[in-house]
Amino acid sequence: MSVRAGVIVTGTEVLSGRIIDRNGGWVAGRLRELGVDVGHVTVCGDRPDDLVAQLRFLVAEGVDLIVTTGGLGPTADDLTVATVAGFCGRPVAVDPALEADITGILRRWRRLDDDAPLPDSLAAAIGKQSVVPAGATPVAPTGTAPGMAIPAADGLPAMLILPGPPRELQAMWPAALAAEPIAAALADRDEVTHASIRAYGLTEAELAETLRRAEHDVDEFSRLEITTCMRDGEVEIDTRFPTAAAAAYTELKALLRRAHGRQLFAPDGETLDELLAAALDGRTIATAESCTGGMVAARLTDRAGSSSYLLGGIVSYANSVKTGVLGVPGALIDELGAVSEPVAGAMADGACRVTGADVAVATSGIAGPGGAVPGKPVGTVCFGLAVAGRPTRTVTRVFPGDRAMVRTLATTYALHLVLDALR
Amino acid sequence: MSVRAGVIVTGTEVLSGRIIDRNGGWVAGRLRELGVDVGHVTVCGDRPDDLVAQLRFLVAEGVDLIVTTGGLGPTADDLTVATVAGFCGRPVAVDPALEADITGILRRWRRLDDDAPLPDSLAAAIGKQSVVPAGATPVAPTGTAPGMAIPAADGLPAMLILPGPPRELQAMWPAALAAEPIAAALADRDEVTHASIRAYGLTEAELAETLRRAEHDVDEFSRLEITTCMRDGEVEIDTRFPTAAAAAYTELKALLRRAHGRQLFAPDGETLDELLAAALDGRTIATAESCTGGMVAARLTDRAGSSSYLLGGIVSYANSVKTGVLGVPGALIDELGAVSEPVAGAMADGACRVTGADVAVATSGIAGPGGAVPGKPVGTVCFGLAVAGRPTRTVTRVFPGDRAMVRTLATTYALHLVLDALR
Repeated sequence: MSVRAGVIVTGTEVLSGRIIDRNGGWVAGRLRELGVDVGHVTVCGDRPDDLVAQLRFLVAEGVDLIVTTGGLGPTADDLTVATVAGFCGRPVAVDPALEADITGILRRWRRLDDDAPLPDSLAAAIGKQSVVPAGATPVAPTGTAPGMAIPAADGLPAMLILPGPPRELQAMWPAALAAEPIAAALADRDEVTHASIRAYGLTEAELAETLRRAEHDVDEFSRLEITTCMRDGEVEIDTRFPTAAAAAYTELKALLRRAHGRQLFAPDGETLDELLAAALDGRTIATAESCTGGMVAARLTDRAGSSSYLLGGIVSYANSVKTGVLGVPGALIDELGAVSEPVAGAMADGACRVTGADVAVATSGIAGPGGAVPGKPVGTVCFGLAVAGRPTRTVTRVFPGDRAMVRTLATTYALHLVLDALR
Repeated sequence: MSVRAGVIVTGTEVLSGRIIDRNGGWVAGRLRELGVDVGHVTVCGDRPDDLVAQLRFLVAEGVDLIVTTGGLGPTADDLTVATVAGFCGRPVAVDPALEADITGILRRWRRLDDDAPLPDSLAAAIGKQSVVPAGATPVAPTGTAPGMAIPAADGLPAMLILPGPPRELQAMWPAALAAEPIAAALADRDEVTHASIRAYGLTEAELAETLRRAEHDVDEFSRLEITTCMRDGEVEIDTRFPTAAAAAYTELKALLRRAHGRQLFAPDGETLDELLAAALDGRTIATAESCTGGMVAARLTDRAGSSSYLLGGIVSYANSVKTGVLGVPGALIDELGAVSEPVAGAMADGACRVTGADVAVATSGIAGPGGAVPGKPVGTVCFGLAVAGRPTRTVTRVFPGDRAMVRTLATTYALHLVLDALR
């Protein structure tokens, strides 16, 4: 049996492009991992009629579950619960237990005592967020807004109403799946497996050629649903298959390793950040950044527990900081320019010396849009890598794209440089 | 007359959430700026049936224009032109002029001489990308794939087929709008104005209350389409209105200033980054970061031209870097802990001293998930602000959310702290 679902993302700020939607794809992706077939994600603004039109569309498409995101806030333009309830012909009423929960949450957030009077605006907001459609199961709030799970009935599919802030939505997901109306709607799904491989330094064209070969060489290749995706210079190869077709995936993976072994840095989908933390293996690291301006350090510190290996970094944007803090010889900068391998190498050495780290990586480049000089176009980035007990290495790359892309690609490259050296 | 449009984003990698869509909102936003009413953005995978279902949905909704993005590549799963042409009942044929153009582009890309033979795979790809539906106007490629503009006819709206890579799409946009079938579809649009206000330190509930008051107090309030959006601790208030209703917007803005004057840091929608660059007014700035780990410096250097005021920063994640590089007294850390206002103040002072900057901002906090101590829960962040010629200031905030949210909110807070002090 195949279970089908559709996702509706609500919010004028998403529809108008002022906010990039991070919910539609996330929800669709999680459903697909569960073996649910998702054919449509739709986005509408805050007009109830547009939401109703999209609900009607998905119902006509015959889906078993509709997930909505957003429109659960306290303001007048947040209308999802009322609109979906109306569409389902379910009256709404304030749920006193839910109201008490939300009041408690808001008192804690605002540090109000239990007996302090609530401001009127807050009381109104709580009342609005405590409303539940008849027959629906509320899902406990992870911010202030609860989710709602509405059972399939009267020819309508099950509906799951989730909040808009991605963190709240993602935190609520496990409880939402466990809510009885949703568990019932998903009960008959196929069992599928997902697997990822990450590669660096591989073009999509090279990969496409290997996959064409795999089509002939791998038994039951057609049961593998493969999607490839280029992100920040890495290629992610995602495969979804009926769990019964695991042997075909094993064959594909072996074929990819034979063809691109060196580039497949994460054959089981591990992230660069995880692998780097493991490869450091007790050593400490520091950064010296010019064009990436702190992005390498910020990425390293994204990971909880990074304080056990990241000592710190120097953002040496101005040359005076390169010389004054990192000890890069001024003559080197005068002679070769700040964007040069010797300067990047001296920056890495300086970061080790100044912080006492075992490993340091440095970036110095031209992120653009200005700053290009003859022989050094926008996108040119020099890297330095210092590892205690080894000679300092340097390398230059020219990255495509605009300022943001050059900085992002340079950040990823810097981390791959470290991973490669430590493995 | 109101002109209505819908947008269809195609691509399994977008539908499944592995790639964040950057086209749907962009196209919808540009159309809205032109005064076009966009009610729906839909996303489908590479299955032609799903695309046809979405086309049918938008036609039933009565739109005047449908814009599709993606599915114009050379591979077998790129089916947009054939599917849309089939839906419109228009036969397709290779356009020899277009074929010659694309051949020229690919020869230049691959550095092939004019008389060098083309590889078979390339010839097939060119043939596929040169196909034009009968009656459609091709839009010149900005990558290798041309766009297609199909006139409204036989009860169907005009259709604009655009490529998937955001850069290609955006580069093609002006020519696409100028194509006769699209210009004709948009001819009757309303003239609208967009305006934004940004606030910091204002809750959505407070704003909602003010807007409820505005509903009574502002003449023609109903002509203002207002959307509010919380992002990284800032609230963005976007308003779209018929240009003829400008007086109502002026009244709303005055009312918001009376109610929340201090919090409206950008009454004309300027970004924090722009305002900060202006407020520095020739002064230089540096950072000293612990829990934000480089994010403040990275955000400052996002902006092209930041090298004229950002000298650099120290990511002092380990205490040894706080003492060794920034000169924070070790006794202060031993006595009060690294997450304390005196340490944050000393970090800011140290950043000024070490880099020679006029202004420095420092962060030291507990981003979590671990690290909380009695009296300092996860989310506690101490800030230091040093401005030449003034006593160093410090402040402590406790931010909600997980590690990523605490770090993001602390980064925004640090920049607002600087802006407030310099204004």
